[in-house]
Amino acid sequence: MRYKLTIEYDGSGFHGWQKQASHISVQQTLEEAIQKFSGEEVTLHVAGRTDTGVHARANAAHFDLQKVSTGDKPITGDIIRDALNFYVRPQRVIILEAKEVPDSFHARLSAVARSYRYLIVNRRPPLALLAAKAWHVVRPLQVEPMQEAANLIRGKHDFSTFRAQGCQANSPIRTLDSLAISRDGENISFHVGARSFLYHQVRNMVGTLAMVGSGQWTVESFKTAFEAHDRRAGGPTAPAEGLTFWDVTYP
Amino acid sequence: MRYKLTIEYDGSGFHGWQKQASHISVQQTLEEAIQKFSGEEVTLHVAGRTDTGVHARANAAHFDLQKVSTGDKPITGDIIRDALNFYVRPQRVIILEAKEVPDSFHARLSAVARSYRYLIVNRRPPLALLAAKAWHVVRPLQVEPMQEAANLIRGKHDFSTFRAQGCQANSPIRTLDSLAISRDGENISFHVGARSFLYHQVRNMVGTLAMVGSGQWTVESFKTAFEAHDRRAGGPTAPAEGLTFWDVTYP
Repeated sequence: MRYKLTIEYDGSGFHGWQKQASHISVQQTLEEAIQKFSGEEVTLHVAGRTDTGVHARANAAHFDLQKVSTGDKPITGDIIRDALNFYVRPQRVIILEAKEVPDSFHARLSAVARSYRYLIVNRRPPLALLAAKAWHVVRPLQVEPMQEAANLIRGKHDFSTFRAQGCQANSPIRTLDSLAISRDGENISFHVGARSFLYHQVRNMVGTLAMVGSGQWTVESFKTAFEAHDRRAGGPTAPAEGLTFWDVTYP
Repeated sequence: MRYKLTIEYDGSGFHGWQKQASHISVQQTLEEAIQKFSGEEVTLHVAGRTDTGVHARANAAHFDLQKVSTGDKPITGDIIRDALNFYVRPQRVIILEAKEVPDSFHARLSAVARSYRYLIVNRRPPLALLAAKAWHVVRPLQVEPMQEAANLIRGKHDFSTFRAQGCQANSPIRTLDSLAISRDGENISFHVGARSFLYHQVRNMVGTLAMVGSGQWTVESFKTAFEAHDRRAGGPTAPAEGLTFWDVTYP
């Protein structure tokens, strides 16, 4: 039976999603919890492979289980959710939902839309309550010029300027469905949505938009950089801790 | 010179505000930072003495400094803020603002209004992103009956039912200026305001309101408990981690 998990985690406690030899990852934590519960060694396939420090509000993954019952009880999604939430402790990762899905479902390949939220706290004092949960930017940022720059990159484009080295994608062409920037007091949120993203695309977009927000770049120079289709033309990569994998949509 | 500090902290890293022999407190962390900066042993007076695990978004405190300059530079509020934010590291407490105030100012005695926010996450799975920042309540809560109950306790009343043992106040009479309850998805927020509160008043009110929200108590039984003026008639104390000292107002 194939199961889909909806997963929340605090990225500051993990070296990213992906399993590694020497560091704790979300994938390994969950695969070990599944093994403790079922006795089976499984591989999790995830919608959004997040980097070290990146959080998730509702990431999704799937795995296959041979076992169909414990004792005489069928293994339902709710049983898996509660069992995994028991075995992952004390790590800060939680199964919000577990449910049976058809064998044709694939958490990465079936996804039709993904969204991220990037959070900046724009003030001089460092962060206490949102430490490791937001990017602390001291230089005052103006939202309006960032919105103007954002207008230039929505839709289908070559996003090479925001594509990190090591990106596995075949093409730098992506369709940015949404990019909304809003301020609430000292907090500035970026909500971005697309079918898929290039490696570090969101963090590179936010880092470059912040150059416009601070007045170090004009909207015109942002446009020139974007149209250069060259990472070296772009601004810095915004730090991981401000990024949260927000949601993933399936047909 | 007297200085007023506006302070943010993550309560999960401290054994409360108040200095103790063997545990780390916010007060001690700040007093030591002030001593490192100025060489002076000072006592901080705070608007809201929070318990272990309780957070602060904008608590306030004052202290007196003999020294008026470092080298030939006068000690401004901004210098104090930045110096303390340097010396408190790596503790999760931050000075949002430091400013000179008249000697007549007293962070506790001059306050004319205080507010708290209590946050519940109402869902079955445990918390990852808001771990130690909210009360995790599994039993489904209805906001409407809690609002009905809240209507009964706004204004000037005897709050003995919500007053913890060890409360130092002379009288159990308080005026609850505001108590607003709202839901945003799985998050339920309580915003409460008053000139001052009894010991554990907010946590006891929230714990008792939650009994109404879950349907274990009726609004009528809440009213009876409130009018009993007896802590033993009230509901349980909501846990510290959901509580944040929100703001304090001075004339």
